[in-house]
Amino acid sequence: MNYKMVFYMMGQICKVVGVFMALPIIVGFIYGEEHVALSFGLPMLSLIFFGILFTIRKPKDNSVFSMEGFVSVAASWIAISVFGSLPFILSGEINDFPSALFETVSGFTTTGATILEDVEKMSRSCLFWRAFTHWLGGMGILMFVLAIMSSNDSRTMHMMRAECAGPKVGRLVSKSRFTARILYGIYITLTVSEMLLLMLGGMPLFDSVIHACSSAGTGGFSIYGDSIGHYDSLYIEMVIAGFILLFGVNFNLYYYLLIKKFSLAFKNEEVRVYFGLVITATAVITANIVHLYSSVGGALRHSFFMVASTMTSTGFATADITQWPQFSQTLLLLLMFIGSCAGSTGGGMKISRIMILAKTGIKELKYIVNPRTVATVKMDGKPVERDVVRGASSYFILFMSLLAISLLLISVDGYSFGESASAVITCMNNIGYGLGAFGPAGNFSGLSGFSKIVLCFDMLLGRLEIYPLIMLFASKKRYK
Amino acid sequence: MNYKMVFYMMGQICKVVGVFMALPIIVGFIYGEEHVALSFGLPMLSLIFFGILFTIRKPKDNSVFSMEGFVSVAASWIAISVFGSLPFILSGEINDFPSALFETVSGFTTTGATILEDVEKMSRSCLFWRAFTHWLGGMGILMFVLAIMSSNDSRTMHMMRAECAGPKVGRLVSKSRFTARILYGIYITLTVSEMLLLMLGGMPLFDSVIHACSSAGTGGFSIYGDSIGHYDSLYIEMVIAGFILLFGVNFNLYYYLLIKKFSLAFKNEEVRVYFGLVITATAVITANIVHLYSSVGGALRHSFFMVASTMTSTGFATADITQWPQFSQTLLLLLMFIGSCAGSTGGGMKISRIMILAKTGIKELKYIVNPRTVATVKMDGKPVERDVVRGASSYFILFMSLLAISLLLISVDGYSFGESASAVITCMNNIGYGLGAFGPAGNFSGLSGFSKIVLCFDMLLGRLEIYPLIMLFASKKRYK
Repeated sequence: MNYKMVFYMMGQICKVVGVFMALPIIVGFIYGEEHVALSFGLPMLSLIFFGILFTIRKPKDNSVFSMEGFVSVAASWIAISVFGSLPFILSGEINDFPSALFETVSGFTTTGATILEDVEKMSRSCLFWRAFTHWLGGMGILMFVLAIMSSNDSRTMHMMRAECAGPKVGRLVSKSRFTARILYGIYITLTVSEMLLLMLGGMPLFDSVIHACSSAGTGGFSIYGDSIGHYDSLYIEMVIAGFILLFGVNFNLYYYLLIKKFSLAFKNEEVRVYFGLVITATAVITANIVHLYSSVGGALRHSFFMVASTMTSTGFATADITQWPQFSQTLLLLLMFIGSCAGSTGGGMKISRIMILAKTGIKELKYIVNPRTVATVKMDGKPVERDVVRGASSYFILFMSLLAISLLLISVDGYSFGESASAVITCMNNIGYGLGAFGPAGNFSGLSGFSKIVLCFDMLLGRLEIYPLIMLFASKKRYK
Repeated sequence: MNYKMVFYMMGQICKVVGVFMALPIIVGFIYGEEHVALSFGLPMLSLIFFGILFTIRKPKDNSVFSMEGFVSVAASWIAISVFGSLPFILSGEINDFPSALFETVSGFTTTGATILEDVEKMSRSCLFWRAFTHWLGGMGILMFVLAIMSSNDSRTMHMMRAECAGPKVGRLVSKSRFTARILYGIYITLTVSEMLLLMLGGMPLFDSVIHACSSAGTGGFSIYGDSIGHYDSLYIEMVIAGFILLFGVNFNLYYYLLIKKFSLAFKNEEVRVYFGLVITATAVITANIVHLYSSVGGALRHSFFMVASTMTSTGFATADITQWPQFSQTLLLLLMFIGSCAGSTGGGMKISRIMILAKTGIKELKYIVNPRTVATVKMDGKPVERDVVRGASSYFILFMSLLAISLLLISVDGYSFGESASAVITCMNNIGYGLGAFGPAGNFSGLSGFSKIVLCFDMLLGRLEIYPLIMLFASKKRYK
């Protein structure tokens, strides 16, 4: 493996994150929290120092293959999570390392699960940093590096693949640098639009920035204990639900709209299934919870928001779903596995992967009836490559195995089977809320340090889609 | 599809089950329960009547392919479950049809989950019938028909495949009739041996017959509310644990031992993993529960019995595991998915299938690192056919999808997520006990009729390994 190139890429990422740490410092000074702002100084300088150290010389051999891509992305994400958690500890707002790391990983992976028992006590610098980690992690930090990098190396595609979500990753244009720029352009436009619309609805500037960043990454960190329910405003809920649904769509679609290839955009099977599922689940849950609310409209409002929040893997809440019937809770938990579209900022297994799996299952049934049938799995009318089909099955197997192992590990804490299972499911799918003690009104503070670290790995496994992390830990043995 | 042949096979199975219904009648007369014994009369005569009606003429076209095999097995199992449940209703010992059907399906599929709130109140005829359904279902009813059938048709292999468990089913000898006879010969020998050993330990004759039948099918129905714990005898526990472990081994192994091919028997990878898992899980759980018992020996005794009972999918109990730490409960629940060896009477996903899945996952990781690697999945040193590898993945996907759907359907009853999940897991894997209300000390009586029917399908899906049932319901549309 080309270790020099791995460190070079890590360095680039550290520098970028270091520079971005100036933002919470500025926020701190604006809101008169100088003492908190300063706790970002040391981590910021460390990141920039290591970043410069690793990038001072560009390796002559700049070849990058899958392994280098996977390993540098995994190592970078762990490094920025560790450094990113330091301000929480230095400012004294989170007392122990596992908790601070959990909060930061939950941020970067856009999970949005929190260990804070009272989020409203937190300083504005730290609140901003939490939301900003969502924003950076949503589209990807390496993606940002690629967008600003001077190099036009087409081989960086391998790195993009390691950070992008979904069963199949393609470039929009021939050079990954331009692809990254297009994606970040769309991302920034959507984020700013949401922020402005929230302000139009009377949300304060700071709150709007936070919730726009949090929505963009489909993260879920809020600044109130009762999340979006705090505003009790139909307008705000609809703006946020609308935008998280947009952030859950494959970004290629927006590119097709930009270049006016409308037919490519509207014939997309995955997007139609996505909206179909949102509508169906909303209708079913509305019918199931209508007796708890004074009107059908009220039930529909909460049902729609929670379905959008869950399917897109955001994890904002307007209602405490642990008070809903078990059927609705179970349905939401199952939707977590499905998640949003590939190539979006959302989590879960991704709709296209689930569709490939479902079609593979149907194909197998046909094969069993008649072994001479040559059935192929198709998406958008075109046959899916064999590698992608097999990859989807293997991903599912690995995902469920890792889920089982994690569940076993955190069961030591003694939470009920349902609570533990929901914690692992919500972390691996990057949602943010679970059942029982981990419900929208609860938090993850009660877990042991060991379980928090396990869940940190689960969040990273979910966000980076398993392979990069496994490669990182397997690489030393096999590729010395 | 050759419907005449499907009905012919169904008829054969109905006749056999009808004739076997004479046994609980005899038991009833022996123990002076004439009124109960008579309630078996009508179902018995109906089964024999329909059996003769369908088999009065052997179809000229006796061709049987996968479809005919799958459909006749699925239809037969449903038919005998319906008729088999009638004595419970006619005798008044179970009041409603869904409950009686649940109990019977639980019997034939060797699940052993019960809806009886007080099993000790039940008549001996019915207790015997419950245990005998385990015995018949364990090795397979169609397998029995094949063993006694006069025909030597080699094409009946397709039918055997539909009822046998595991990713890959082969004949022991060239003719399936002789294979069936060899398997039943081993089965009867083991059952009788266990019965005699139990009687040697002081267990009464009736109890010994019941528990030997129940062990043989790895079913789990007992005649006491506290299951095997009732006897509080280390000898009895060890005999039962030993035998259920033997019944959980691939029966081919015993055949190899019989024909003195010892190397084939002892080099079996699946069996080594099976015993390895039993030992590891026993050690881990012993360490986890040792503080609950007065001695390490006591903890080891309960841990070993419950691990053996769970891995083999039997479901007997000597301890109420809902009182154990969450870690042990979670581990047992995960072991349910693994189950026993292919070609045994045990349930679960089968160890060889799990091994193929694990090896497929590792292969995929290697492939991602280096796409030029040509890795093959091997078992016992030989490469596994592609169809079998793909089949294992598809089976896993279908299994988990059906599990998710069932979980959603029964969540309407309002049990906690953990309880509902454990009910579906225990039924689909044919174990018998779950968590919470469905634990070893509880029962399934609290579920609605709808949920009981859903779980009946789950038990059949697990026992017949999904495809036969799907074919039965899909066949009408496609093969008119």
